[in-house]
Amino acid sequence: MPYPTREEILEAHKRIAPIIHRTPVLTSQSLNEMLGCEIHFKCENFQKVGAFKIRGATNAIWQIDAAELQNGVATHSSGNHAQAVAFGAKAKGIPAHIVMPSTAPKVKKAAVIGYGATVYECAPTLAARESTLEEVVAKTGAFFIHPFDNHMVVTGQATAAIELMEDAGGAFDAIMAPVGGGGLLSGTALACKYFSEGTKVYAGEPTGADDAYQSMKAGKLIPSVNPDTIADGLLTSLSPRTFEIINNEVEEIFTVNDEEIMAALRLVWERLKVIIEPSCAVPVAALIKNKEKFQGQKVGIIFSGGNVELEKLKWS
Amino acid sequence: MPYPTREEILEAHKRIAPIIHRTPVLTSQSLNEMLGCEIHFKCENFQKVGAFKIRGATNAIWQIDAAELQNGVATHSSGNHAQAVAFGAKAKGIPAHIVMPSTAPKVKKAAVIGYGATVYECAPTLAARESTLEEVVAKTGAFFIHPFDNHMVVTGQATAAIELMEDAGGAFDAIMAPVGGGGLLSGTALACKYFSEGTKVYAGEPTGADDAYQSMKAGKLIPSVNPDTIADGLLTSLSPRTFEIINNEVEEIFTVNDEEIMAALRLVWERLKVIIEPSCAVPVAALIKNKEKFQGQKVGIIFSGGNVELEKLKWS
Repeated sequence: MPYPTREEILEAHKRIAPIIHRTPVLTSQSLNEMLGCEIHFKCENFQKVGAFKIRGATNAIWQIDAAELQNGVATHSSGNHAQAVAFGAKAKGIPAHIVMPSTAPKVKKAAVIGYGATVYECAPTLAARESTLEEVVAKTGAFFIHPFDNHMVVTGQATAAIELMEDAGGAFDAIMAPVGGGGLLSGTALACKYFSEGTKVYAGEPTGADDAYQSMKAGKLIPSVNPDTIADGLLTSLSPRTFEIINNEVEEIFTVNDEEIMAALRLVWERLKVIIEPSCAVPVAALIKNKEKFQGQKVGIIFSGGNVELEKLKWS
Repeated sequence: MPYPTREEILEAHKRIAPIIHRTPVLTSQSLNEMLGCEIHFKCENFQKVGAFKIRGATNAIWQIDAAELQNGVATHSSGNHAQAVAFGAKAKGIPAHIVMPSTAPKVKKAAVIGYGATVYECAPTLAARESTLEEVVAKTGAFFIHPFDNHMVVTGQATAAIELMEDAGGAFDAIMAPVGGGGLLSGTALACKYFSEGTKVYAGEPTGADDAYQSMKAGKLIPSVNPDTIADGLLTSLSPRTFEIINNEVEEIFTVNDEEIMAALRLVWERLKVIIEPSCAVPVAALIKNKEKFQGQKVGIIFSGGNVELEKLKWS
């Protein structure tokens, strides 16, 4: 499958810049000292809809012909991509039909409905998501925007790393992102390949949904069976499109368990004073666990999102 | 008492800019829609030590003669100013002696000790703080930097509003800050007086520690007796210095109760994805309660700090 090109990524950035926030990049002296490297956090948790997903969704919706959008857009998503598509559809004045697993966080479901989208609940399996989506598309004629297995979406997600590199000045030794379906990670890998060749790209992945780790190890796509992790945005498995880019362009995938994820989340809340969701804490947990590899390096971490249900977090 | 001048504020900003973070200014479309105005949040919760207090403390420490600092610095503070003085002393390589009430949040006490300062616990009353501080100064010869009743400290706190106005482009109709001892509020009022004459300055104050509200109403300084509020950074009362500036230059003080403060805190956590401490939520609560007065206006809010004990927050 052809990769998104350098030019497509630059065009995507021009296309979506007026729609999205230019999110800040934060640093913390105490975290730098603790981990022995210079870390720059790209805060996509402050992005519109609370996640980077708006980049890919708007890059897609804004370049699809009006004729193809006349029946609106559809997708399946556990949350952040759902919000992004609903936001884009509202801005364009077209309907959005969103299939969400019954286990999706309430706060994400409420936000999607708040944007005026129609939500279709389904069982929390990929098969149920896909079959429900098929029915919805057949009935409505809406244009399906896949959450990551889509050329325009991957191209849009690449723009977060572009901004991180522009705003943090000087080349990064490493950039880390979480990996679920692989849209953000493959986009990030392409941004570095084209615009910062010496930067290595890494990912954090939950041990309970470690298909990217297993797939890279095996050199072939091995989807997760019954994934289970507190990182609700990373339950999905790679597609052939994102696996190809990740397998070729990503240096290494680090796995972390739920306990490590929540410890990293808490550290970020306490030190950086920013709200990140569990999925977003995954690359931080990966950096903490593997900090010896990054001593003295300049490291970028893309904070993917901040949509979390406060009631569900227990501190002790 | 002479006000800090326009020139002193500009010099202070040049002096401390290399030491502090240039904190970002965030906006939220959903909060704008909810409150009917255009709100710009100056995120001093992301500041070094997690609060604006670093501005006044470093502005003082960096301009005091080395001879006067040879025995270090001392202060009394329930938390954020304590951290700021401890941070400044560590950077200058001098000792810091910090008197803290026994009720100060653990996280703030731990941070002060982390900067290498010596902590002296006292009873949670102004009298105990002042008498303990006197003893410590007598014994150590340290230079006392008052948390707000200090010309250099007020001058330093004024710089947060300067940056907010520079970074948010265009004149503000209103800027709001919390008020405890009045250092941030009086500095903010002077910044607007000198650099944005048409901008009105407001404050939020807890009903359980409403000395600024009562004092402005009476036209004379009336300190709080047994203040009690969840906003632990706002228990202190104005000093003659800060009262004079506030009484002359501040438009209005709005009071809010603890329930309103915690609802505002939660709204900010959920919508802006940033961690603010209860004291910092006070002007947000004040804006929510008085939103009719600000319809269609451009409003700045200074987020004062983000040092909160996660265990103590109960969501339901």
